[in-house]
Amino acid sequence: MVLEERTIKSDKIYTGKILTLRVDTVEIDGQGYSKREIVEHGGAVGILAITDDKKVVLVKQYRKAVEKPLIEIPAGKLEIGENPKECALRELKEETGYDAENIKLIHKFYSSAGFSNEQLFLYLATGLTEGETNLDDDEFIDVSLVDLEEAYDMVLNNNIEDSKTTIAILMAKNCL
Amino acid sequence: MVLEERTIKSDKIYTGKILTLRVDTVEIDGQGYSKREIVEHGGAVGILAITDDKKVVLVKQYRKAVEKPLIEIPAGKLEIGENPKECALRELKEETGYDAENIKLIHKFYSSAGFSNEQLFLYLATGLTEGETNLDDDEFIDVSLVDLEEAYDMVLNNNIEDSKTTIAILMAKNCL
Repeated sequence: MVLEERTIKSDKIYTGKILTLRVDTVEIDGQGYSKREIVEHGGAVGILAITDDKKVVLVKQYRKAVEKPLIEIPAGKLEIGENPKECALRELKEETGYDAENIKLIHKFYSSAGFSNEQLFLYLATGLTEGETNLDDDEFIDVSLVDLEEAYDMVLNNNIEDSKTTIAILMAKNCL
Repeated sequence: MVLEERTIKSDKIYTGKILTLRVDTVEIDGQGYSKREIVEHGGAVGILAITDDKKVVLVKQYRKAVEKPLIEIPAGKLEIGENPKECALRELKEETGYDAENIKLIHKFYSSAGFSNEQLFLYLATGLTEGETNLDDDEFIDVSLVDLEEAYDMVLNNNIEDSKTTIAILMAKNCL
């Protein structure tokens, strides 16, 4: 295995609101050169929020990238310098209105390491109390409560198609 | 929930080897306009290959986007027009040398639907027989066999940090 790909040249292609695209030319020991297209992303959190009666808080929203609505756990992007745990509490509140008494990191993963550095921090939130939502101007989200067993079936029959939501529900089934 | 975001304008920013970046201006009913930065990707497969004695075939390779090696299941990009099942058999063979007698789709997911249309097709491969690998010029991969229970522990203690690998191993634990 190669232990390093040395960056010989790095071209910034685009800097946007949620991502940056760059193309690196890398040198691989004894193997010459190659190009790597890389999408930089500031990272995100997903929240597996479970009510006292073992229901999972799910949200449904239109995702332009895939041109359809997806069923997901609440989630959001990390703001610059923001602590992931605080981000998780903030996003849960903003998207669903719930406050959580307990919040715990259960997994970290790279969504698509072949081309992006986006890292997702998955939190388990319990001790929920209801409150008011506070959505961004261009966010439109349906919130629902689903039995954990039913959510698990939604993963198995692939009604859930989002990576973080799949991981969160499978982990809940295994680890709670 | 919004059921559609109408594309008013679509600007192609970059067309590369593995991805395309575009920025869409969308109109949301009664809510005005917003920008969506979207990474188009042709899709990929991941292969959960299990030997007759219940070992999982894992690969380790350097991932430039995250600047470190990751432990993953064998995987690869779909070629244009390629059938995902054939892609799975091809990539398993190329990266690990294994041929599979049985191959079955177990899950489909979007790796990062907030900004990319990349879809991953996860296959279960069994009835494995060993053979020769055939790697791309810029691919350098270590192959290992790991007990399913140990792979599961690697997910729980987060030594596995890749989305498709996490999903595959959690599904194996639940569904096999």
